[in-house]
Order: sequence, then structure tokens, then C-alpha cells
Amino acid sequence: MEGITGILTDLFIIFAAAKLAGGFFQKFDKPAIVGEVLVGILIGPYALGWVGTADNSLVHLFGSQASADESLALVLNVMAELGVILLLFFVGLETRVSELLEVKGRGIWVGVLGIIFPFLFGYAFLQFSGRGNLEAAFVATAMVSTSIGITARVLGDIGVIGSRESRIILGAAVIDDVLGLLLLSFVSNMGSAINYWELLLTAGLVAAFVVFASLIGTRIVRRYSIHLNRIPIKNAPLMVTIMLMLGLSALAGWIGLAAIIGAFLAGLMLAEAKEQYELEKQALPIYEFLTPFFFVVTGTKVNLAVFQDLSVLALALGITLLAIVGKLLAGGLASRGLPRRSALIIGTGMAPRGEVGLVVASIGSSLGAISTDMFSAVVFMSLATTLIVPPILTRLYRKTTSKDELTARTPVQEVS
Amino acid sequence: MEGITGILTDLFIIFAAAKLAGGFFQKFDKPAIVGEVLVGILIGPYALGWVGTADNSLVHLFGSQASADESLALVLNVMAELGVILLLFFVGLETRVSELLEVKGRGIWVGVLGIIFPFLFGYAFLQFSGRGNLEAAFVATAMVSTSIGITARVLGDIGVIGSRESRIILGAAVIDDVLGLLLLSFVSNMGSAINYWELLLTAGLVAAFVVFASLIGTRIVRRYSIHLNRIPIKNAPLMVTIMLMLGLSALAGWIGLAAIIGAFLAGLMLAEAKEQYELEKQALPIYEFLTPFFFVVTGTKVNLAVFQDLSVLALALGITLLAIVGKLLAGGLASRGLPRRSALIIGTGMAPRGEVGLVVASIGSSLGAISTDMFSAVVFMSLATTLIVPPILTRLYRKTTSKDELTARTPVQEVS
Repeated sequence: MEGITGILTDLFIIFAAAKLAGGFFQKFDKPAIVGEVLVGILIGPYALGWVGTADNSLVHLFGSQASADESLALVLNVMAELGVILLLFFVGLETRVSELLEVKGRGIWVGVLGIIFPFLFGYAFLQFSGRGNLEAAFVATAMVSTSIGITARVLGDIGVIGSRESRIILGAAVIDDVLGLLLLSFVSNMGSAINYWELLLTAGLVAAFVVFASLIGTRIVRRYSIHLNRIPIKNAPLMVTIMLMLGLSALAGWIGLAAIIGAFLAGLMLAEAKEQYELEKQALPIYEFLTPFFFVVTGTKVNLAVFQDLSVLALALGITLLAIVGKLLAGGLASRGLPRRSALIIGTGMAPRGEVGLVVASIGSSLGAISTDMFSAVVFMSLATTLIVPPILTRLYRKTTSKDELTARTPVQEVS
Repeated sequence: MEGITGILTDLFIIFAAAKLAGGFFQKFDKPAIVGEVLVGILIGPYALGWVGTADNSLVHLFGSQASADESLALVLNVMAELGVILLLFFVGLETRVSELLEVKGRGIWVGVLGIIFPFLFGYAFLQFSGRGNLEAAFVATAMVSTSIGITARVLGDIGVIGSRESRIILGAAVIDDVLGLLLLSFVSNMGSAINYWELLLTAGLVAAFVVFASLIGTRIVRRYSIHLNRIPIKNAPLMVTIMLMLGLSALAGWIGLAAIIGAFLAGLMLAEAKEQYELEKQALPIYEFLTPFFFVVTGTKVNLAVFQDLSVLALALGITLLAIVGKLLAGGLASRGLPRRSALIIGTGMAPRGEVGLVVASIGSSLGAISTDMFSAVVFMSLATTLIVPPILTRLYRKTTSKDELTARTPVQEVS
């Protein structure tokens, strides 16, 4: 029984550390996920060594000769994978296709330019630094997507969720989530695709999967979800939700995509039925149980010692700067005609990468496409942008002269 | 990514199969867990081969050379372990120490005799059949504990939960759950203990652990639980609950006990705060997500082909018969002075073994103490007693002449 005791001990340490660190950060108005990742770095194999092993790659662990350490790493990676599946499922659940189609004008421009600039900047910077094609593409992809949860929470906290800038930011963030996931699918297959035809086939499959789930799937859910309660399974709506989430995650894997894309699409489909059955409230305990494993395990894979090499530290600072500049530029260009401060607010609001950067980094790392040092650099970028933005955004809004933009405080569903 | 896709596929198949089979059984008024175990047998490696591998033992999987199949088996076993931890946590959550101490007179006798008779009968029968000491003890332990969930549900369904017989059954079942777990702790260490002193040490540790959690732990929870909400962690009551559940499960492992004992004690402690924070309702989604893995994975380890050997079939029928006779005898002896039908109702009500028999069998199997054929026989016994009892109990109650015993229908918290 020693094996299972060791596993349970690690699960306990990870869960407890995540909640204590997350709570500590929230007490000081910092995002909980930053605390969870940092505590992972602290208790991981490169620092205190309480949990985890130094092996980054699920691929290496699976089907090879496994030591006890590697068996443990496999289990922790699977728990982290389930955590990130729940995470992206919730992102999908909070994205309504109807809202996605409603984002117009500036929102679209902010979203699209906010993908293009950081990607190009990141890719060029990495190539310039002598990194390979695939690694540059992965790091650049980690730089594109805004973490909607962090920004929405800040906007809600200062009571400006209904302001013009907020609406543009939230619309743009939804667009860049979807585009970011499409980019991730494409980049994930760059390494394994044998030729352009295969890459094209994958792109076609991705498109078909996304279109089916987001247009036809949502319609099916909208029309037939009233019957969910009649299925003779106890608590049928939640059970069918979990089935769809696991099923589409596995299906995404089979057609060569990251599992999280399937989880996101499952959430997108079920967003149409979420009020009817309180799906968010019901799935929340599972989310709160599993997602800490993703953030802590991601932290355990960060090796701070790589920053002893000053060129790696420069890379980390460089991508952090470019990640911010890219979004500011996108916000500025797309906001022509608005007051300068509005443009600045929009650009700043798009800057936190939070969990989305971490997700891309993990996948890149598990595919072996991102090296250990760049993995740590990308985590640095995700955490730094997430920590820097909220106080700046608060200050920008407080100073804003157009007080008429401010509306009553609206409660916001927070992701993390 | 093929590894993780394979894992997600298996998790999806197991979860979906469990819910569909469970729903199908409930539609025909049969316990859902029977459907979940049977579908596990069906899709497992000995029949359709859709999921799982034939390896029973976590010990063998852990830290050895692992093939892809074995990695998958490890993950499924860990998910099953988390499922059974949630299961026993809920059993504990539904057991109040105060209620336990209130069980008096007949209830105690029915509980204690209901442990002694099936254990002695089972142990003697297995020894007589030429089985070893340890295997006989494990099988006999699997025969002792009543599955309170099944009986409570039947009693609730026919609206007699408040009757005298029901109160005796429910009180006795709580007693025999606790005694059964103590017996399991003892038996689990028979194989690994080097000498009697060590066995004595373990017994002392078990006693200290149980006494601490059930007497001091519950008092601490009762006194300080009002402050749980003030801990600056989001949804603190549930998060602390999960920490305690994982922490005590790991601790149980470290002091040489089955993890489920820790989970049960965690539930027992938090039973004092469950209404205050709706802990049952909040933890239910995690329970509903994880427990199917335990039941289905248990099913996948059953090899029906062992019953081709008629001596194994005879063993399975023998322990099933003795499991029922043992409880009937206990009910009869402890119910002297009550009407004959009451004694029959009490004995019959104690007969379903349900999940408790399965839990003991799994632990015995993962320790290598129960052979593959006896594992299948014990699962047979658990399912058969669970299926046979509800219709008989319903019939016995309907025929009962003492209509004054019947009270208004009370909703019952069902375990499965």
C-alpha cells in the first residue's frame, strides 16, 4: 500500500498548499492562481522537493520503464490534466456563442490585433535569440491569449464592468480565447505533422470540430436540454455534463488536438443550458477540487535556477515586455477615435495572460516542444503580467475623467 | 499525447457506462451500484476488453517496469481509490458519533452478533475449503459489514424508516460499519506484521486514531466549525473538508491502515458541521464524479470464467448463503421477545453487503491476500445479497400485521 499512500500524501500536500497559498494571495488582493503556481515552485523538486519529480513530459512517462518516482509523476500529471480540462470547460461555460457573434467593431479588432502583435513579436524575438522554429511558435502562442478571469475580476472589483472599455475588453478577450485555441491546435501539430497535407487535414478537422460544437452543438443543447431532467440517471444534467466534457476531451485527442479544446467546446455547448440546471454551481466543487493540481504541478516544473543564466532571464523579461507591448499596441490601434486613456485601459486590460499562458506552456512542455528554460520563462511571463496589471488598471480607471462611463457595480463570475 | 488520450478515453467510457448502467438499474428499482459493477465486468479485460487490464495489484504496478497498459491500470486504480475514499467519507459523514453512542440494547446486539456470526462462518468455511489463513480472514471480513445505504433506501421507499425494526437495523448497521473497519485494519496487517508485538502496536495505533478522531476530533469540529467561514480561502468549508479527507487518508496509510479508514474518520468528524455548511450537498458532485470509477474498476477485475470451476462457484454460493444466514441468526438471537416477523425483518435488513464487501475485497486483492477466484466470489456475494434483499424486505413489511409500527414516509439520504 506504500505506493497509494505516497500518492495520497502528495495529493494532500498539493491541495492544501494550493488553497493556503491562494487564500494568502487573495487576502492581499492578488490573484489566487499566482499563489498556487508560486507554492508549486516552492514545494517542487527544484526547491524543497516535497512533491513531484523533475520529469516534464507525459510522453516520456507513458509506456516506458517507470520507477516509483515516475509512477507518481504520471499520476500527478493526470490529475493536473483533469484540472486543466475543468479549467477550460469553465472558460467555455462562460462563453456564449451568441455573445461571441455579438462582439462587433472595436472588440473584434482588439481581439484579432491582440493575437497578431504578441505572436509576431514573440516569434521574431525567439527566432532572433536563436531558438528553433517550433519552440518560437509555442512560446509566441503562449503570449497571445488574455486571461479573461483576471481582468473581469479587476473590472468587477472597481465597479466598472459595464463601462465602454470593459465591454470592448471582455468581447475582445472572448475572441482571442477562441483564436488562441485554434492557434494552439495548429502549433501543436507542427511538430508531429509529416507534411503540409497532414497539417491542412488537421486544420480542417479543427475547423469542423469547432464549427460543429459551437454552431450545431449549441443548437442541439438549446433545443433538447429541457429533456435532460427526464433521463433516468440521478442528477442527470451534471452527469451528462461530465460525460460530454470527458468525451469531447478524449475525442479532441483522437483527432490530434489538445484535450482542453474538447473541454472548452463542451463548455461552450452547455453554456446554453447552464442557468436551467445551475451547471456552474454544481460543477464548481469538482473544479475547485481539481484545478489546484494543474496550477501547482505547473509550478513544480519551474526551475528558478535557469535564471542564473542571464540570457534566460533576459528572454523571460523580453517576452514579458513584448507580451505587454503587443497588447498595448493592439489596444491603441483599434481604439483610434477614443480618448487616449481609454486606449490605454483597453491595452492594459488585455495584458494579463494568467492561466492561458500556463496551459500553452504545459502542452508545449509535455510535447517536448518547449525546453525547460523557456518553460520557466513563459511561466514567469504569465505570472508577471497577471501581477502587474490589476494595480495599474485600477489606477487608470480611478484617474479617468469621463466619470459618465462608470456604471453600477455588477457581480462578475470569476474564473479563478 | 497518445498516452493522455488513452487515459481520457478510458475515463470517459467508464464514467458513461457507469451512469447508463446505474440509471438502467434504478429504472427497474434495482440498486445503481449493482449496475455499475456489472457493466465493469462487461467492459473489463475478461469480457469485452474495452477498458482496464487484468492486473489486480497496485503494489505490482507501482515502481516496477511499467508498460503502457500498466500505466493505464495505475491511473484507473488511483481514480478508483479516490472514488472509494469519497465513498467512505460519505459513510462517515452520515454517521454521527452522538447517534453511535445512542444506539442501545438490541441495536448493539444485532450489530455485534452480526459481525461475529458471518465472520466465524466465513472463516471456518474458507479454512474447511483448504484456503489459507490470511485469505480466509479477508473473505470473512468482507462478509461482516452491512451496506447501510441499500437498506436505508428500501426502508425509505416503503415508508417505514421510523418503525422500531428500522431503528434497530440502522443503529446496528452503524455499529457494524465501525467494527467492520476495525476488523479490516487488523486483518490488513496480518499479512505484513512480523510478529505479535507489531500487530499489537498497529491495533494500538488504530484505537488511538479512531478514538482521537471520533471523540476529540468531533469536539474540535463542533466547537470551532463556526469559524470555518472566516478563513480567507474561497469556499473554505468545502476546501477544508477536502484537505481533511485527503490528509487523514494519507495519515491512515502512514500508520499502516487502509486509506478509507482515514476518509471515514474525516467524514465522522465533519458530520458535526455538515448542516451548517451544506457539506453533503457541496461534496456530492465530487462524490458522483469519482465513485463510479471505484465500482466499475472493481467490476473490471472480476473474471466470470473462474466460475467454470464448479468448486469456485460452490464457494461463491456458500459464502453468499453464510453471509445471509449469519445476519438472520444475529437478528433472531438479538430480537428475542419481539414478534417473529420483526426478527426476520431485522435479520434480512442487515443482509445486503453492497459497497462494503466490495471495498474489503478490493483491498484484499490489492494486497495480494485474496486470490483472483475468491475476489470474484466475494463480488458475487456482495451483489447477490444486495439484489436479493430489497424485494424480500418489501414483502415482509407489507405483510406485517403491526400496522401501528408504520410511520409516515421520511426522506432518506441515500448513499448510492
